[in-house]
Amino acid sequence: MKIGVLGTGMVGQAIAGRLVEAGHTVMIGSRTSNNTRAAAWVESTGPKATQGTFADTARFGVLIFNCTSGVVSLDALKMAGETDLNGKILIDLANPLDSSGGLPVLAFCNTDSLAERIQKAFPTVRVVKTLNTMNVKVMINPQLLPGHHTVFMSGNDPDAKSVAARILGDLGWKQESIIDLGDITTARGTEMLLPIWLRLAGALGHTKFNFHIVVGESSKQ
Amino acid sequence: MKIGVLGTGMVGQAIAGRLVEAGHTVMIGSRTSNNTRAAAWVESTGPKATQGTFADTARFGVLIFNCTSGVVSLDALKMAGETDLNGKILIDLANPLDSSGGLPVLAFCNTDSLAERIQKAFPTVRVVKTLNTMNVKVMINPQLLPGHHTVFMSGNDPDAKSVAARILGDLGWKQESIIDLGDITTARGTEMLLPIWLRLAGALGHTKFNFHIVVGESSKQ
Repeated sequence: MKIGVLGTGMVGQAIAGRLVEAGHTVMIGSRTSNNTRAAAWVESTGPKATQGTFADTARFGVLIFNCTSGVVSLDALKMAGETDLNGKILIDLANPLDSSGGLPVLAFCNTDSLAERIQKAFPTVRVVKTLNTMNVKVMINPQLLPGHHTVFMSGNDPDAKSVAARILGDLGWKQESIIDLGDITTARGTEMLLPIWLRLAGALGHTKFNFHIVVGESSKQ
Repeated sequence: MKIGVLGTGMVGQAIAGRLVEAGHTVMIGSRTSNNTRAAAWVESTGPKATQGTFADTARFGVLIFNCTSGVVSLDALKMAGETDLNGKILIDLANPLDSSGGLPVLAFCNTDSLAERIQKAFPTVRVVKTLNTMNVKVMINPQLLPGHHTVFMSGNDPDAKSVAARILGDLGWKQESIIDLGDITTARGTEMLLPIWLRLAGALGHTKFNFHIVVGESSKQ
């Protein structure tokens, strides 16, 4: 599949690289078409990798990943352009973290979420929020951690969530590890995991961990 | 140990009952000294159970549980009275959920938490936030769920956290299931689990689940 990855930082490059390994053709996009960091990635990744502007990348992909920093994601998506995004599946794994003072806090939460803001700004885009609750090394290699652990999914479009689930499979996720929380407003819940994620990273001294939802038998309740 | 449980609702009664089973002597407290719900609980629980006002309960306990509804906890603690709370360990398992419109939202979060508000209002009370991220049936019977799952703990006083860990043991928690996140501000993280907890309850159709933090080996990171 032709996939556009918006964002050429650590997360964008790691996701894009893993998608290429899984057989997809990937363009990574930034504000400029000649980003040196992106050029180095393209050079090292091979013929299935290209780079372009946000707009080039939105045009290229039949499915788009939002790997930009959450507080600038809406700007990046506006640069990508509504015309080239319309009707497409957008997998949003950004979190609206404001890192301007000490330990990051969410720029907004509780009664709103980044995923909802994106969905509202681009009503025909099929936004799926997922992968935003773990370190990128775990995102692209769930086997890094022992046993079962969970990846959450939120979105209004069931077909888009089915496609996203297949893409998660390409990244190494077992289908039984996916919990579909419901519509896009449920992304409030996953974005609000970031504060405890940051504190767990502090308490554990590293970021090689993930949430797992342990479920009992409801009939016994 | 003499334990005071503030709150005579489902959570207060369940915690108090389990503490009596574990050998503690427990008073449950409400606004009035002759609460009929509390009287029924005392009657059915036996000689180690009594009831009183919030103030009676704070005076009685050498350790206090806050099992009141999060949005009224500060009022209840003020009724309990600073004099009788000072220097004691307060285990706070409330969440500041505002249920006034549809699915509850947090009354405040992100840059603040109920645990911090309590700690600020009662500076000499040794507040430990724990148990606030699961259904009460799981709180008092962790074996209800299969395998490993996690109970978080936040607080400024290491000795108070040690005592709280022993009390968690009395409720059935293995010590290795406890993650000490750090100081009381880390309670922001656990209180902010409530939005996803509520949505998981919706997606799963029941509340018999819990979070588990799956940790990889940091040396390999």
